[in-house]
Amino acid sequence: MQNLINLINSKLDEYLQINYPSDLFKAMKYTLELPGKRLRPVMCIETTNILGGNIDVILPAACAIEMLHVHSLILDDLPCMDNDDYRRGQLANHKVFGEANAVLAADALLTYAPQLIIEKSNGLSDKQLIRILYEYTKFAGAYGLDAGQVVDIESEGGKLIKSKEETLNFIHLNKTAALFRLALKTGAIGADADEKIINEFDELGIKFGLAFQIYDDIMDTISSFEELGKTIGKDENSQKLTYVSLYGLDNAKNKFKNLINECYDIINNYDSKILNEIIQKLDKRIAKG
Amino acid sequence: MQNLINLINSKLDEYLQINYPSDLFKAMKYTLELPGKRLRPVMCIETTNILGGNIDVILPAACAIEMLHVHSLILDDLPCMDNDDYRRGQLANHKVFGEANAVLAADALLTYAPQLIIEKSNGLSDKQLIRILYEYTKFAGAYGLDAGQVVDIESEGGKLIKSKEETLNFIHLNKTAALFRLALKTGAIGADADEKIINEFDELGIKFGLAFQIYDDIMDTISSFEELGKTIGKDENSQKLTYVSLYGLDNAKNKFKNLINECYDIINNYDSKILNEIIQKLDKRIAKG
Repeated sequence: MQNLINLINSKLDEYLQINYPSDLFKAMKYTLELPGKRLRPVMCIETTNILGGNIDVILPAACAIEMLHVHSLILDDLPCMDNDDYRRGQLANHKVFGEANAVLAADALLTYAPQLIIEKSNGLSDKQLIRILYEYTKFAGAYGLDAGQVVDIESEGGKLIKSKEETLNFIHLNKTAALFRLALKTGAIGADADEKIINEFDELGIKFGLAFQIYDDIMDTISSFEELGKTIGKDENSQKLTYVSLYGLDNAKNKFKNLINECYDIINNYDSKILNEIIQKLDKRIAKG
Repeated sequence: MQNLINLINSKLDEYLQINYPSDLFKAMKYTLELPGKRLRPVMCIETTNILGGNIDVILPAACAIEMLHVHSLILDDLPCMDNDDYRRGQLANHKVFGEANAVLAADALLTYAPQLIIEKSNGLSDKQLIRILYEYTKFAGAYGLDAGQVVDIESEGGKLIKSKEETLNFIHLNKTAALFRLALKTGAIGADADEKIINEFDELGIKFGLAFQIYDDIMDTISSFEELGKTIGKDENSQKLTYVSLYGLDNAKNKFKNLINECYDIINNYDSKILNEIIQKLDKRIAKG
């Protein structure tokens, strides 16, 4: 897996060159280059791989999805959103480049991602390219990330339109699961898989995304600042709606376990060391906690 | 022209339906529905029309460009950017919906625009569709709007990397001209025009965009709040780099006139009452002022 992460890091660097105005490009690269697990592009590329596709063809789209993820992290940290000064143990983008440049860098990543897909995806058919761009726009915007973020902020302010359970589910289907769905669907489309298989990987994205969020909520409850690299206990302090606050720690763990088992059910049909490893890592960590 | 504006307004309303979470969609629609001249979609559609294309085919892309324009207006008004409380004589988006929702609504417009192009552009070939999406991503992002905005903000803070003349030119090629270029190129691509003609309309976008900005700078100097619907004299108060502040009023008028004449040179090759009317309106207003 480390080889794949290294490849992604070198491609992210290659695809995004510093240009004028350098402050914009430096701000874009700053959060993009913070050390991360690159889970979404890894899962995207591995999906293309296990479905018999050519991973070179899907590399630009996989990196574009990481750019979209980083875009959402920059926005999340803004004073008007979560107001977090740290990200991955480093100063948040707006603390280094100022709020205006952070907003514009986030925007520029959001738009450069599909530009990159169009420019660099040699080997995709026009139909595949259009489908990937379409999935990108849906999961990135008003029917994905932005919707999840608005509901998240409103729920923190105590404004609930739906029940707490439905609200929590909506937030994480649209904030966390959206990008895993996008990554896995894009990987399947990149391998020119049929609709049934694309849907199967979409399902995997939903299960894994929700499990990942529950993992995050559990970890936020039991971890320390050093381990997570962000302000700890923040969720609890702001009375944020989380799987732990809503269902309690034991029920959250059970939900997590059920989702992880459903993930195994799907990937057991395929021979993927990497997807197995990613899921096992979460699983073991929670079992230990 | 009013018929075309009415058509665009009804399509904008039709294309963007209120969904959950309604606050997000209301914020998106709020600034989109402020009364405007819809210059960019009008010029896009008219270009398709005079080049023999079918305007129904290009309507979604034309409306998408208006969404991109409105996205940039919402961001421009934010406290961390121009910090303007009013837009088109009404409260700015963040004054009505709060800063977080304004940022997310702006983002959602930026991403919904290409989603709309993919979903609704029946009649474009795959090649045309991909080309239009590509032009959109370039002019909207780090090589267009966002670059112009970063340089604009930095120049206001007194940070200049290039000369004042080059800086001013860069800002407005990327902020103002970018969307006219996008509109006119998209219109030409929608009519399946050849590359020479696409480039001609790109040139028209540059000339018209710069003329439009100089017009705006001149008007800001000589107009009143009632006429422009925004805080007047703001540019002067903040010692903003403008065509008037850099070259003086008379030289700015001369530059404007030269650019307008170059616009006429291009559109005289075509029989377009609407493009003529748009250019003449600016021209007469400056002649009167």
